[in-house]
Amino acid sequence: MQRPGGRSARVRSAVHEAVVDLMEEHPWEEMSVPLVAERSGVHQATIYRRWGSMSALVQDVLVERFTAGEVPDTGSLREDLRQYTTNVAESLADGAIPLILRATVMEIRPGESRESSPAFRAREQQLQVMLDRAATRGEQVPTVEELLDVLVAPLYFRALFAQPMPTAHADRLVDRLLDLAAHR
Amino acid sequence: MQRPGGRSARVRSAVHEAVVDLMEEHPWEEMSVPLVAERSGVHQATIYRRWGSMSALVQDVLVERFTAGEVPDTGSLREDLRQYTTNVAESLADGAIPLILRATVMEIRPGESRESSPAFRAREQQLQVMLDRAATRGEQVPTVEELLDVLVAPLYFRALFAQPMPTAHADRLVDRLLDLAAHR
Repeated sequence: MQRPGGRSARVRSAVHEAVVDLMEEHPWEEMSVPLVAERSGVHQATIYRRWGSMSALVQDVLVERFTAGEVPDTGSLREDLRQYTTNVAESLADGAIPLILRATVMEIRPGESRESSPAFRAREQQLQVMLDRAATRGEQVPTVEELLDVLVAPLYFRALFAQPMPTAHADRLVDRLLDLAAHR
Repeated sequence: MQRPGGRSARVRSAVHEAVVDLMEEHPWEEMSVPLVAERSGVHQATIYRRWGSMSALVQDVLVERFTAGEVPDTGSLREDLRQYTTNVAESLADGAIPLILRATVMEIRPGESRESSPAFRAREQQLQVMLDRAATRGEQVPTVEELLDVLVAPLYFRALFAQPMPTAHADRLVDRLLDLAAHR
């Protein structure tokens, strides 16, 4: 007999994998819980009970994908930020991520006041951990808000509306962010 | 008899208005040239001849919406940037724009190398005009790239993934951008 935790983790993993695979093959409007059930071999009723809706399921995939990677911990904030930037750039180039981003953006209802997305908040918490470690080492650190504005926002903005950011450009943004912290 | 230019402009305006109205009522997947034809009273054949596809039509609406507003020309770059920021924030709060943004993001095909979107390039050109005017007045000006990274990207990133940026925060980003230009 399997431990319930083990089974639960396997169900989550099978369902997540099915979502990512299906999103590479199907336009978002064709995505549905029955399709995910068929691909993952997990009963529809189980999926509805655990996630409630297709949209909540996609948010869960998004949180996992955006937070599964270890936060870099190199001993230097500059190096941490460079590695983090490379990780974001790679995930934005990875086939599944732009599709999942599309799904997120599609969830936005105009004029509706809303909470920040769970994936956004999970990311903020991860970045805070990175900054706290550097502060403990005695480094001058920017705020999470500055990190999002100066580094993360341009990475996403360019990937969504223009072209992916070259590494040299991303490195300049890391320098700009650390200058900001140093001259406070 | 109407001048051809007058008729052409009226067709464009009727079709654009139909697209914006329909996007507020229908999910993107239901949008189609026949639907736009029905709502605008313009023949399908005319729409296909002029725009080629639903996707090209949406891009045209996007370019017009993002460039129709006058670029601020107050005589001071700081004031121009503040007004520009307010305009962007308002257009991101306006019902139609988030829908059109969604449509743009949905056009992204993962792994596909692509040109910057026409709306993105139109916006870059507009911003260059604003910066050139300030340079002519002898002001220290940032590059368009810096303007996009420091000011425009965070405005969009927050509107898409978190919450709209408060005016006081946007003003601080304008100051940060001008500091960057001053300390080059």
